[in-house]
Amino acid sequence: MNELLERPRKVYVSRKIEFNAAHRLFNPNFTEQQNTEIYGKCSNKNGHGHNYLLEITISGVVDPETGFLFDLKELKAILEKEIVERFDHKHLNHDVPELQNCVPTTEVLAVLIWDILEERVRNINNREISLHEVNIYETGKNAVRYFGE
Amino acid sequence: MNELLERPRKVYVSRKIEFNAAHRLFNPNFTEQQNTEIYGKCSNKNGHGHNYLLEITISGVVDPETGFLFDLKELKAILEKEIVERFDHKHLNHDVPELQNCVPTTEVLAVLIWDILEERVRNINNREISLHEVNIYETGKNAVRYFGE
Amino acid sequence: MNELLERPRKVYVSRKIEFNAAHRLFNPNFTEQQNTEIYGKCSNKNGHGHNYLLEITISGVVDPETGFLFDLKELKAILEKEIVERFDHKHLNHDVPELQNCVPTTEVLAVLIWDILEERVRNINNREISLHEVNIYETGKNAVRYFGE
Amino acid sequence: MNELLERPRKVYVSRKIEFNAAHRLFNPNFTEQQNTEIYGKCSNKNGHGHNYLLEITISGVVDPETGFLFDLKELKAILEKEIVERFDHKHLNHDVPELQNCVPTTEVLAVLIWDILEERVRNINNREISLHEVNIYETGKNAVRYFGE
Amino acid sequence: MNELLERPRKVYVSRKIEFNAAHRLFNPNFTEQQNTEIYGKCSNKNGHGHNYLLEITISGVVDPETGFLFDLKELKAILEKEIVERFDHKHLNHDVPELQNCVPTTEVLAVLIWDILEERVRNINNREISLHEVNIYETGKNAVRYFGE
Amino acid sequence: MNELLERPRKVYVSRKIEFNAAHRLFNPNFTEQQNTEIYGKCSNKNGHGHNYLLEITISGVVDPETGFLFDLKELKAILEKEIVERFDHKHLNHDVPELQNCVPTTEVLAVLIWDILEERVRNINNREISLHEVNIYETGKNAVRYFGE
Repeated sequence: MNELLERPRKVYVSRKIEFNAAHRLFNPNFTEQQNTEIYGKCSNKNGHGHNYLLEITISGVVDPETGFLFDLKELKAILEKEIVERFDHKHLNHDVPELQNCVPTTEVLAVLIWDILEERVRNINNREISLHEVNIYETGKNAVRYFGE
Repeated sequence: MNELLERPRKVYVSRKIEFNAAHRLFNPNFTEQQNTEIYGKCSNKNGHGHNYLLEITISGVVDPETGFLFDLKELKAILEKEIVERFDHKHLNHDVPELQNCVPTTEVLAVLIWDILEERVRNINNREISLHEVNIYETGKNAVRYFGE
Repeated sequence: MNELLERPRKVYVSRKIEFNAAHRLFNPNFTEQQNTEIYGKCSNKNGHGHNYLLEITISGVVDPETGFLFDLKELKAILEKEIVERFDHKHLNHDVPELQNCVPTTEVLAVLIWDILEERVRNINNREISLHEVNIYETGKNAVRYFGE
Repeated sequence: MNELLERPRKVYVSRKIEFNAAHRLFNPNFTEQQNTEIYGKCSNKNGHGHNYLLEITISGVVDPETGFLFDLKELKAILEKEIVERFDHKHLNHDVPELQNCVPTTEVLAVLIWDILEERVRNINNREISLHEVNIYETGKNAVRYFGE
Repeated sequence: MNELLERPRKVYVSRKIEFNAAHRLFNPNFTEQQNTEIYGKCSNKNGHGHNYLLEITISGVVDPETGFLFDLKELKAILEKEIVERFDHKHLNHDVPELQNCVPTTEVLAVLIWDILEERVRNINNREISLHEVNIYETGKNAVRYFGE
Repeated sequence: MNELLERPRKVYVSRKIEFNAAHRLFNPNFTEQQNTEIYGKCSNKNGHGHNYLLEITISGVVDPETGFLFDLKELKAILEKEIVERFDHKHLNHDVPELQNCVPTTEVLAVLIWDILEERVRNINNREISLHEVNIYETGKNAVRYFGE
């Protein structure tokens, strides 16, 4: 079965999910003026929000038995528990413990999501796969990618 | 000039803008349980947020001199003042006076934006044009259209 | 609450869902040559498939208490049961009883989905709402809309 | 065959095509200053350009034999001859005779395309169908729709 | 001519095409229960389908004479013959000989398309170019990339 | 502040902008026939045009104080001055001095934009960041990426 997979084939599989969250960019160590200069209207006291589009990419050798890199159902369960439950319909500054001592920029979100998922995805399906990339679009125009470097 | 416009031609011109805002769906007249039943995770106390995509459509007869329905620069100035300044990077429940006694659903936003713009656009360029449609996408999947009915 | 809704406001609320299905365009009453002439490569014996994007639009007066036209959770349940279970990951010619005596073109699908949903959505939330439009994109380039006429 | 089509069903079928063209917004009857005030940077002497996205919508009763509103192959041939050959990879001001005495705004383009297609589509497949809508996106943000009014 | 190209410039040129196909995920070496566990509703007996979006990326040094990496007309002809004719409006399990002994997952498709195109694109225009990446979106949410590793 | 940033985190931040321009692909060193063979309808004498979508990616270590890779306001100012003012609503062959001795293909544009931006972005915010990628979509189907190699 799957003659094309007789030699190892390393692929990169991506999955997109969306979460809708509020945030405020504000650093209590900065003066009010510094916050305004650095974060502009993103420092609005009551916060604002986004439809965050997250694309997770996982790499590894395709399983010659199934033709899959990994079991998508397991990844969906991980993303539901680790991403959707944690971030969706939340205020990032107030509702996410891991962001309590952070300014929740898109850069910081990308790094946090990498740290959360990196170990979790290694165990999907007991296969040798690894998290390759976390890519977040805050709007259609701005994106941050993190590769764990 | 503009032979094609020798007879009146009624067109519909649309313009898209985006604003990023936080909101919370919560009605103080309802019990906590009612709010949870009706609004689900949208009633999260600290709010959540969206990249709202707004499409405004204006209708009227094309000006045979310019070939335009109206002066886009004027519409841009109106949208900047009435929409972006009012809603962008704001918390709809706390920062928008017109929404103080409302639950800021997408339906309510569409109605409010119609009420704000309807009179304003009538005066663009001193031409006989009228607001035809307000269309808001809260996410890529959900949209509300309002035609002033 | 919801001062903006003191007078009735008729809105149109849209919801998009996707289903992935196979189909074959073939009319047993036509000759082989007629089928080829009319349906071209869409008449390929073993079928082909699409990611169908379906947009359902419902109209009615916004509920002044909730600020919603209707309860989206109820619509989601209806769409899951009536659309996803019936069409998703199915072969339209073989797996959908309602299409047994039809050529499953996008036009026919739009009509069938209208017939299925029209009565069902009338009862959402016990509110006076009605199905306004069924819009199906077979590909990014081709769409069919049906308004029940 | 096609039980769902035993009673007449009026549908709206849309088809998208793209053409890439240059244009300049400039009215020789205006002074240089008027042109600059009205058309801004769109009046740049050497022109600029766009990927125009055109969506044509045709309406009529579905053919109960084929399940189609009309033969898409015929429409494709018409669009290739009347739209792509006329506008694609052209400078609208210099290369399109029908626009010689016009300022080639999107409004004017929508009207011209209606006038070109309206009669042509009536004859597709010898069926009673009619052009319903011409919709042109000049950019992702700006669109003009014309319904023949 | 082309002063900017006086030193070699290595670019990556991408081209997107779409094909519409049916498939079924089913491994005859697995039990019925295993197939259901692994492939879920993707193992539906009669198959289902997708609008596959394929993005091919080719890399090499820009030709200082033409300003092109390669002749797009040649690539279009190759993609028409090797991809569209082979996969478009086909059932991947039944109509594609190269997939006879495979489960036609997106991973397997990406690998097969690489193997088909890798040698073919090397000869475009007699220039030293190479296939860099095959990227397939099965839906808007799921993609597989293969780089020949 | 920003505990997640206690160790250096290298991220890639992307920003999209659009410019609308005309161009003609024509090499005066080629015969008329060669130009037609190589550039086809892109060599139309009066030019044609596109909505160019440009995605700039910058890489570096996130600033642990601000949570940003760099000050987006500075990048916006650079892109406005160097890209929009130079290319938007222009004819690339006639209005852009840097392209005078070039055939303005997408490949050449990607290289030129890299050369323009590479030094400029190094100074944003006095931080150690570098231009990583220039990606231009000429249409939704064709893109060229350049990494400075």
